[in-house]
Amino acid sequence: MTDALTDLLRQPHHDGSPLYCDAETPTIGWAVKVRVRTDPDDPTTQMWIRTTYDAEPVYHQCVQVQRDGLPAGSTWWEGELPVHNPVTHYRFLLADAEENQSWLTAAGVVTHDPADALDFKLSTHAEAPAWGREAVVYQIFPDRFARSAAADERPTPHWAVPAEWDDTVVFEGTDPRTPLQFFGGDLDGVTEHLDHVADLGVTVLYTTPVFPGESNHRYNASTFDGIDPLLGGDEAFERLSHAVHDKGMRLLGDLTTNHTGDTHEWFQQAAADEDAPTRDWYCFRPQGGYETWMGHHTLPKLNYQNTDMRAAMVEGPDSVVARWLRPPFDVDGWRIDVANMTGRLGVVDGAHDAARAVRRTAEAERADAWVIGEHNHDASADLDGDGWHGTMNYSGFSWPVWSWLRHPDTPARPFGRPLAVPRRGGSEVLTSLREFAARYGWRATAQSWNILGSHDSARIRTQVGGDAAVHRVAAGLQFTLPGVPMLFAGDEIGLEGVLGEDSRRTMPWHRPESWDTATLDAYRALAGLRTSTPALTRGSLRWAHADEDTLVFVREHPAGSVLVAARRAAGDAVALPASAMLTGADEIAGDLLLSTEKGAADLKVRKGTVQLPAGGPGLTVWSL
Amino acid sequence: MTDALTDLLRQPHHDGSPLYCDAETPTIGWAVKVRVRTDPDDPTTQMWIRTTYDAEPVYHQCVQVQRDGLPAGSTWWEGELPVHNPVTHYRFLLADAEENQSWLTAAGVVTHDPADALDFKLSTHAEAPAWGREAVVYQIFPDRFARSAAADERPTPHWAVPAEWDDTVVFEGTDPRTPLQFFGGDLDGVTEHLDHVADLGVTVLYTTPVFPGESNHRYNASTFDGIDPLLGGDEAFERLSHAVHDKGMRLLGDLTTNHTGDTHEWFQQAAADEDAPTRDWYCFRPQGGYETWMGHHTLPKLNYQNTDMRAAMVEGPDSVVARWLRPPFDVDGWRIDVANMTGRLGVVDGAHDAARAVRRTAEAERADAWVIGEHNHDASADLDGDGWHGTMNYSGFSWPVWSWLRHPDTPARPFGRPLAVPRRGGSEVLTSLREFAARYGWRATAQSWNILGSHDSARIRTQVGGDAAVHRVAAGLQFTLPGVPMLFAGDEIGLEGVLGEDSRRTMPWHRPESWDTATLDAYRALAGLRTSTPALTRGSLRWAHADEDTLVFVREHPAGSVLVAARRAAGDAVALPASAMLTGADEIAGDLLLSTEKGAADLKVRKGTVQLPAGGPGLTVWSL
Repeated sequence: MTDALTDLLRQPHHDGSPLYCDAETPTIGWAVKVRVRTDPDDPTTQMWIRTTYDAEPVYHQCVQVQRDGLPAGSTWWEGELPVHNPVTHYRFLLADAEENQSWLTAAGVVTHDPADALDFKLSTHAEAPAWGREAVVYQIFPDRFARSAAADERPTPHWAVPAEWDDTVVFEGTDPRTPLQFFGGDLDGVTEHLDHVADLGVTVLYTTPVFPGESNHRYNASTFDGIDPLLGGDEAFERLSHAVHDKGMRLLGDLTTNHTGDTHEWFQQAAADEDAPTRDWYCFRPQGGYETWMGHHTLPKLNYQNTDMRAAMVEGPDSVVARWLRPPFDVDGWRIDVANMTGRLGVVDGAHDAARAVRRTAEAERADAWVIGEHNHDASADLDGDGWHGTMNYSGFSWPVWSWLRHPDTPARPFGRPLAVPRRGGSEVLTSLREFAARYGWRATAQSWNILGSHDSARIRTQVGGDAAVHRVAAGLQFTLPGVPMLFAGDEIGLEGVLGEDSRRTMPWHRPESWDTATLDAYRALAGLRTSTPALTRGSLRWAHADEDTLVFVREHPAGSVLVAARRAAGDAVALPASAMLTGADEIAGDLLLSTEKGAADLKVRKGTVQLPAGGPGLTVWSL
Repeated sequence: MTDALTDLLRQPHHDGSPLYCDAETPTIGWAVKVRVRTDPDDPTTQMWIRTTYDAEPVYHQCVQVQRDGLPAGSTWWEGELPVHNPVTHYRFLLADAEENQSWLTAAGVVTHDPADALDFKLSTHAEAPAWGREAVVYQIFPDRFARSAAADERPTPHWAVPAEWDDTVVFEGTDPRTPLQFFGGDLDGVTEHLDHVADLGVTVLYTTPVFPGESNHRYNASTFDGIDPLLGGDEAFERLSHAVHDKGMRLLGDLTTNHTGDTHEWFQQAAADEDAPTRDWYCFRPQGGYETWMGHHTLPKLNYQNTDMRAAMVEGPDSVVARWLRPPFDVDGWRIDVANMTGRLGVVDGAHDAARAVRRTAEAERADAWVIGEHNHDASADLDGDGWHGTMNYSGFSWPVWSWLRHPDTPARPFGRPLAVPRRGGSEVLTSLREFAARYGWRATAQSWNILGSHDSARIRTQVGGDAAVHRVAAGLQFTLPGVPMLFAGDEIGLEGVLGEDSRRTMPWHRPESWDTATLDAYRALAGLRTSTPALTRGSLRWAHADEDTLVFVREHPAGSVLVAARRAAGDAVALPASAMLTGADEIAGDLLLSTEKGAADLKVRKGTVQLPAGGPGLTVWSL
């Protein structure tokens, strides 16, 4: 049982959004105006920015300001933050007339002197492209999404255990047949169903690997020189790329920079001949054997200390990273598999260097390339520099949301942890959300992926115990919290799955009666709202209320702000201070913009208080 | 007002000390046994170590163990932590029978999923020398410690404003005369008073710079090739070094690696001639002028990208770092001034590289050299690697202790912050102590300096409003919390000072009646206890109790454990669970080892409860 947090809107607030920060991506030498919003009754009489200058702490005084565009109903403090280093860390020191001091950190106000771990961050490294930041991403696992007619003509590969489209996924975990059950989805199958994807409001199609590999997941590439013929080969990929772009969408590839398959031509040479030119492209051990991904001998690890391998893989125009971004394939960017381990091995930590190389190469080929790194825990040390723009935010989004919405009796199984997702109350979940957002920084959080599940985890529908209403709460958070929503194909129609392999179920195109169309409609509405609402892609995040079953927050943006209330169960009305939520006009609009619940209505303000109606489970968005 | 924390001893506990960790400094490839102590009533039914392997999270199960040497009265869990990377991060995942999950981090137990910022750390890089880890350090500011007769014969330098020994320090802050008031203390003066130092229990003498510089502080060196003649020159330094070592003590120098004075021979050449070989040793700006320490034109910043400068300063046997560690000077290590900024400038971050160079060079010259870096905020990113062994722990020790013990009406002025030290209660202070200790890691904290004041800050005696009893509480914490006590000369006799310059008061050797001998006795007793008690240099730290005015903790070690109770004001008795404090025998010894209060007695155990007697202000240590 956790305590309710009810006065959050009265807390001093700052984040990296336009109301609070004049430049999300400044240049060294700039002085960026930063602002803090405080409650009219807040006792603060002095405020200072504390930042560091070549790692020396320095203080810059803030003053109270009044100005058009700064909402009434609050006090606004402003100061100038000099940008001297590539990444500037800062927080605010507040003092009242009684000489009490507190700190406003990126995770909220604390009354002790904190370490710098939760400082705000401002990075001068280029931001993610707008098409990425504002995206709705749709993940396709090609073997399971759709089969074209051509797929029927292709022989089943020698390594595969063939499956019919309606078969269940029968192998899992350490069973050696897990990667072998082959359903035969292909790229023309994807192309044929792009209307479904586009209609959903998706703006970026992301496919897991399409290079050949002797598995259904293809994370064990046997070459990077061509698309798997089982998927239709290069021509099918070209057709898909054209179709995606014709619809105004973007296409993201999936590249395993950490390892290849042991069937890869590079590794075949290296393993056969100690003097092979590619021998040092991998990490052969002096005592025999070679380094792998987590002990899987089929996944030999690449050696980022070898410049030839780097040239082949990540550096320069002939690299894999570069080639697929060019016509006729025109991939718009990469999701990097096992980004966290890439370039890291024991005493060698070349991960940032590898990330920088991928990004540099991608941007040289395509100025608005987007690179997202897979990372399964705290990615903060790898973000907001000149490497990955963002991460698959399992730690900072998925785990908190799973923890809040997990059904006590779900059959969902653990992902990356020996224990199932714990069920937690709103306040504890809020602590995680704030802590990770603080560690990653405003921009890197907004550039990272809000994921409810992937091919590696249980499906969200299963996490919530099959409860469609709670599933839609999860989807609502995915589209309304800072970060880029990434849907795993099938989530939108309520597919289930108790763990990664089981989640890779085929799309039941021919059984539309099995689709949860109410949830599909909710995803479509959420995608539409996000795409048309700058507050949801660029707006602030102010937490308003948290209790066991309720999370309420505000996203503020000069172009219009919104209030979001999420309830995992039925709950009582919640009163919020109206003045703290004013963002433009002198009154709160309170128009209902979206609700996953029936009967939702506009907000009402009485005596300066906004009364959030009782209700739930559901997620509702109002204009402010 | 903060809440009391009363059940801390019932919380699961782990740290880097011998009871909890089999190897403080492991080698890559080892599997280190780590243990968690839990209360017999703790509901934990499963426990896992979560660590990372090349940045991929992995889990290792712990089991309950019983073994000689693991105290009864608690449950002990043990697991094996594989050491794969140079620094291993880890924490513990705990679950109970109801599937509630919590995490044991280095800052304590949390019930949300935390970021990795407060993970435990285990570093394979070599530890600090034992003589450093176990030291009692005494800081001397040569101009103010003592004058030998020879000093009277030396003419006042041209730049100086002469002062008599009993004069007050009259200049401060930005007054240009601040560095010029010259009292004429010298090295033979120090040598003549080594009996006082040794008698206090000091084991390491640390002098602020002794190279010539046209100031009383000499942080603006005009050469590194010889000792300031105003201090007696090289010969006087040799005499001091011999005398220090003859007494079994060690000698630490103070080196400004970040900058020199503008009177330095290197800079004089560089400024006079754009083609001078040393021109690129500094950071001249293309548009004119040069980089300095915080805008002080007299302190030009060194360029760590220049290999010749590095060779002269920090790399190899001819460097400044190396030369003074050799006979006849035999300095045992360095305190590095402005370590945080050294090598850092805008887009260039060569700080770790510079720190590594200093350490490598020092250790090549003297295998047991000790290097401590000055750092005024969160030094965690710069510690526990192959650079600085530790830091001057202002953030993790001084500020929390100052905050707790500051007198509301002290005239003490800020150090490095625009506001005076805030007065805080025990629980808030405890949060800071735990958070910084966690960020720095067990070993780096133990290798860092517990400072109550230095030549840069107000004196502790002034911080506490002149209250001798509270001063002794501060001293007690300095000697009993993890970390190496560093006294600024004069603290032991109760000298005052409202800010850095004012704190550089001369030692009143000729006015013994002005000495606070009770406090001197307390320091002597504390130094003796620390030096003779492994628990205080190597033992665990378990917090037992915190309220506004009281902080209680246990330091456990196989060679004997202690209980420490600190009170800033009179307070009531506190009951603690005896079984949680058993560390060897089946009963608590409770012998009084030291108290800064009169009338302290042995501890009594009744019905399984240890009753800490009412009392205060004071600090008392008992055996367990």
